[in-house]
Amino acid sequence: MKSGLGFLIAALHCEIEGLEQLARTSELVGTIGRLVHALQRERGISNVLLASNGHRFAEQHREQIAASQRMEAAVRQSFEQLAAQNRIGNGARLFSRIAWVLPGLGALPELRRRIEALQIDAAESTAAFVKLIAGLLAVVFEAADGATDPEVSRVLVALFNFMQGKEFAGQERACGAAAFASGRNDAARQQQWLHLIDSQERCFKVFVSFSNETLAEAWRANQPSGQIAELERLRRIACAAPAGVALDPELSPVWFDCCTQRIDAMQAVEELLADHLRSVCQQKTAEVHDELAVHEALLPKLPDESDPPGAAFFDSHGLPEPASDAAPYGRQLERSILDMVQEQSHRLQAMSDELETVRSALNERKVIERAKGLLMAHRRISEQEAHKMLRQTAMNQGRRLTEVAESVLAMAELLPRNAAP
Amino acid sequence: MKSGLGFLIAALHCEIEGLEQLARTSELVGTIGRLVHALQRERGISNVLLASNGHRFAEQHREQIAASQRMEAAVRQSFEQLAAQNRIGNGARLFSRIAWVLPGLGALPELRRRIEALQIDAAESTAAFVKLIAGLLAVVFEAADGATDPEVSRVLVALFNFMQGKEFAGQERACGAAAFASGRNDAARQQQWLHLIDSQERCFKVFVSFSNETLAEAWRANQPSGQIAELERLRRIACAAPAGVALDPELSPVWFDCCTQRIDAMQAVEELLADHLRSVCQQKTAEVHDELAVHEALLPKLPDESDPPGAAFFDSHGLPEPASDAAPYGRQLERSILDMVQEQSHRLQAMSDELETVRSALNERKVIERAKGLLMAHRRISEQEAHKMLRQTAMNQGRRLTEVAESVLAMAELLPRNAAP
Repeated sequence: MKSGLGFLIAALHCEIEGLEQLARTSELVGTIGRLVHALQRERGISNVLLASNGHRFAEQHREQIAASQRMEAAVRQSFEQLAAQNRIGNGARLFSRIAWVLPGLGALPELRRRIEALQIDAAESTAAFVKLIAGLLAVVFEAADGATDPEVSRVLVALFNFMQGKEFAGQERACGAAAFASGRNDAARQQQWLHLIDSQERCFKVFVSFSNETLAEAWRANQPSGQIAELERLRRIACAAPAGVALDPELSPVWFDCCTQRIDAMQAVEELLADHLRSVCQQKTAEVHDELAVHEALLPKLPDESDPPGAAFFDSHGLPEPASDAAPYGRQLERSILDMVQEQSHRLQAMSDELETVRSALNERKVIERAKGLLMAHRRISEQEAHKMLRQTAMNQGRRLTEVAESVLAMAELLPRNAAP
Repeated sequence: MKSGLGFLIAALHCEIEGLEQLARTSELVGTIGRLVHALQRERGISNVLLASNGHRFAEQHREQIAASQRMEAAVRQSFEQLAAQNRIGNGARLFSRIAWVLPGLGALPELRRRIEALQIDAAESTAAFVKLIAGLLAVVFEAADGATDPEVSRVLVALFNFMQGKEFAGQERACGAAAFASGRNDAARQQQWLHLIDSQERCFKVFVSFSNETLAEAWRANQPSGQIAELERLRRIACAAPAGVALDPELSPVWFDCCTQRIDAMQAVEELLADHLRSVCQQKTAEVHDELAVHEALLPKLPDESDPPGAAFFDSHGLPEPASDAAPYGRQLERSILDMVQEQSHRLQAMSDELETVRSALNERKVIERAKGLLMAHRRISEQEAHKMLRQTAMNQGRRLTEVAESVLAMAELLPRNAAP
């Protein structure tokens, strides 16, 4: 029979196991970040290749494909390692996200063949890469949502938002490159552009609020004001001008290089974040190991490893001191075990509360996903169409995407299920 | 290398494992319910024994102790079985709750010895049982909070609230029995009494809103209006009278029997709930097993069990149909696997959203626990004192306990940490 102390030790073992699992998931997140970065570069290079009818960046394209493939191999290996682990907390959701993204990786060779054969245009190619990268970021999101430790969860939320912000920056690069290259901007693209700026700024804001001073400082240093000034100048030229006004196509490579410098620099911050994640996991695990050692040292002091038979448990309720030798193993030992158990219990409770708070930062994304799901079910439309519908409504009404999503959910009760549109 | 379908199957295996774990936790919850019921009876009988200076209920007391001990043995066995499982989702928190409660069970013999020797009074004895039962209910709470399936979680939330409501009814019985036996009621006890009525009604309301029509009907049938009328009459006599007015001590056994009949009847509803919980777990597990069989049957159709190399993943983005024989394994198979993975992914996402909603019903309790923890840390007081302080404030201000707890949390930022009172 396990005593109270025995269960306390079992609880600490569970906590260590959870942290070790988090360390493995965190490794995966870092690896995914590097693949996403490679795919973002490949997307940009593919666009130039397609826009120039195969004349520009053919060599860079081949080189970048090789780089993407190396990162893809690393991600696939991480997936396998995770699957080999038999204890994954939110395994069902994490694995189904991986299941979703794998056919996308499998379809990459065919996508690249079509790009090289100039069988698709830049918009189609961009959309394909956006979809694949979104699938990879969904794996990171699930990893962040499934974290069981608030400190680790905090870093994962920061990292997820940074990666998502970087992806919006990448989409902005593609959007702007297409606009400048075409020689003019229209109202729809201007609005989409402004949305991408808004979305990326919100992501980086969440990242800063969930990271520490060192990382926030690294982020500020990473984005020198000279570079940002040039970025803002180009944004203004394209977005502040009346819709339909001509743009100088010569600015297309200028814009592309400016964005690429900025996005490549972001990768350094992302690596810092991944390092920080690793060290937080290690540090937390070491802390719990120390605590475990203290508790395990106490176990042999209890005869038969059973609970002390005294009534110390009820003492704080004003029960009198024991009349007899009812606490033969020492009243002090009994009290100290009780105190430890209660302290431990409060620590875990506080942890779970903080975790709840941290995770709520992920809610915004969940609201949008739920609204999309609802629209898909009710109007029998695809995910892409649902997303477009939400975004269009947000643009038309000048509201944030989350606000529109919340309105959709609030109306959910009024909508018939699976009704035809 | 696992394919997308392979990961989908792994996700379903994780889901089944989670459900099987839930089934074990649910068994434990049922067993705890029976021990709590035995301890509630023992608390009542002990009070009569102590109040009558050992003259009444001595025989019943011995019999009830034997019954409690049988239930305790069953609970201890369930604890052991749970500890032997190596995959417990929220193991750290669940085990630390068990660790907290075990010394309480260990201290029961000493508590009983003091009761039989009439060394403590009824109030002290009641407080001791209340503390132990609260610890057992905390284990049930953790089980409900750790559930990974929304339907199972829904039943667990209903069951937890029912058990908590029943415990408030038990505390009301003790409070009323003491009031009638003493021959008068004072203002403090009246207010505590009204709080117990209010708390139990809120718990039963949550139970009804989270259970199905059959269970709600069983609950209504369980509490016949004649019995409730008698209960309300006795409540009115004691609580509506001006504080300090004399009460007829002859009403003490009448009150006790009326409450006991009602609480014993509740046990039947609790058993129904436990049965329902068991069948929901079984049904959900069977459903996922069926789904798994469908997916596993598909696996051998994929050569090398790898992902189909076609570009169907990107199709919905308007990529043209493949120009060549890029989908040698059949475009239809490729599409159907993709569809299945996406459907599965949406199902899990929807599940996780619903789970979040169900779990928020447990938040009220968490708010109170957090406020208590805060007061304990800031004012260096015990849990009991913190609870009393919250309750007293609620009484004085005529507000609900949760409202006061929320105010305490809202002020948290303004309070110095670990400051002397």
